[in-house]
Amino acid sequence: MRTIRLTVAYDGTAYAGWQIQPNAATVQAELEKAIEKITGKRSRATASGRTDAGVHALGQVVAFRTGSAMAPEVLCRALGAELPDDIAVLDAREVPECFHPIRDAARKRYRYVIHDCPVRDVFSRRYAWHYGRPLDAEAMQRAASALLGKHDFTSFAASGSERTSNVRTIFVLSVARGQGGQAAVIAVEIEADGFLYNMARAIVGTLVEVGRGAQEEAWPAQVLSARDRAVAGPTAPPQGLFLVKVDYPPSCESPTSSRD
Amino acid sequence: MRTIRLTVAYDGTAYAGWQIQPNAATVQAELEKAIEKITGKRSRATASGRTDAGVHALGQVVAFRTGSAMAPEVLCRALGAELPDDIAVLDAREVPECFHPIRDAARKRYRYVIHDCPVRDVFSRRYAWHYGRPLDAEAMQRAASALLGKHDFTSFAASGSERTSNVRTIFVLSVARGQGGQAAVIAVEIEADGFLYNMARAIVGTLVEVGRGAQEEAWPAQVLSARDRAVAGPTAPPQGLFLVKVDYPPSCESPTSSRD
Repeated sequence: MRTIRLTVAYDGTAYAGWQIQPNAATVQAELEKAIEKITGKRSRATASGRTDAGVHALGQVVAFRTGSAMAPEVLCRALGAELPDDIAVLDAREVPECFHPIRDAARKRYRYVIHDCPVRDVFSRRYAWHYGRPLDAEAMQRAASALLGKHDFTSFAASGSERTSNVRTIFVLSVARGQGGQAAVIAVEIEADGFLYNMARAIVGTLVEVGRGAQEEAWPAQVLSARDRAVAGPTAPPQGLFLVKVDYPPSCESPTSSRD
Repeated sequence: MRTIRLTVAYDGTAYAGWQIQPNAATVQAELEKAIEKITGKRSRATASGRTDAGVHALGQVVAFRTGSAMAPEVLCRALGAELPDDIAVLDAREVPECFHPIRDAARKRYRYVIHDCPVRDVFSRRYAWHYGRPLDAEAMQRAASALLGKHDFTSFAASGSERTSNVRTIFVLSVARGQGGQAAVIAVEIEADGFLYNMARAIVGTLVEVGRGAQEEAWPAQVLSARDRAVAGPTAPPQGLFLVKVDYPPSCESPTSSRD
């Protein structure tokens, strides 16, 4: 058996998220169907993490095991031809058999897009949070700095989820307004060693409270210290969120590496 | 009665084009429904020109006559709230009663977007022509220059259409590849005093023949001289086409202008 690692982009609009569930279209179900059609055998496709309904991916990482001897480039093209037009396979490669996309992930980057303009943009409605009045992106950026680094992010985790630790490290957290024709678009980039459930959207929802002037710039730091989801801002809606990329250590890159 | 001029953006994906037709969703039908709901009376909404199924608009101009005394800003917001989320009213203003969006249009600009990359982009599939291999945008730009100016564009008009004249003037025709993250996107901008049916898409289809190397750079000039639609390239698909803006002479701008 070989392990194949795919880099997958998808428009999450039409899906009830990544994970297979009864009576709903999911990205995982579409991928497993395409893999079965091409290799002739059912395989479980595992992603670096679930994405929720309506959330998009520019570079989700997915792995599956197969007995097929098909070259990865051929598999990549064949899957591309088989998948619906809102799911694309950007890359396929063979990796060490023990590669696991969740356990081995070293860093993940999410992007959240906000369109802060009174007038709706018909072209970004599936790919941005339409916020009906201008936000102070610079205040959001200053407020965000308190969340950088290693912290207990309990305040930004959906309640009810059970984990051994809610400590994560955020390496990048930037809030930037677009230039020129993109002046009504704010992009929030968050890169971390891991994300608690709904963490990216809870951080964005909290920063927006500062951006709209409802909270002081020092408030997100207080939310962080409180370790209580109830004090944070609302969870931002799913359609603005993109899983940009997932990084793995070099040992996960090649099937002939020392890890094997 | 007052004449109200609207600037309207729409995502054409879900519509059988601008013009009302039986048993199909159209932009005109949605607008007329919203106008009736708000003013209490049916009005005919006239656009600067029909757009085909799947074609988008960033700045379509639409006019309707109404007995309502509602301020244009109020009308604009009310229509925005009433319309489906793939149609947005960007501006509403009162214009001279005799304003006619087709007859009075001085210039129109279209943009055509091509994504020339072997890998599909799931986010642009509704908003670009996915062309599976790289095109030579610079050759397309050089070839396009022959179409600039005043010419008989019969070769670029859908056959069967009857007109007194197929002479039009193209003021702008540029082919430009995007920079950075947009390097796989080519935008063709065409501004003219008018467009024959399918003219923008026929020009793009012809330039792509040059871009892919199937025709010489001098070929579009020959196509133009032939005055025969059969010799031009194929009509580019609708989803890459955007009506960017329509310009009117200053006399159409204000209800108190000298035209009145």
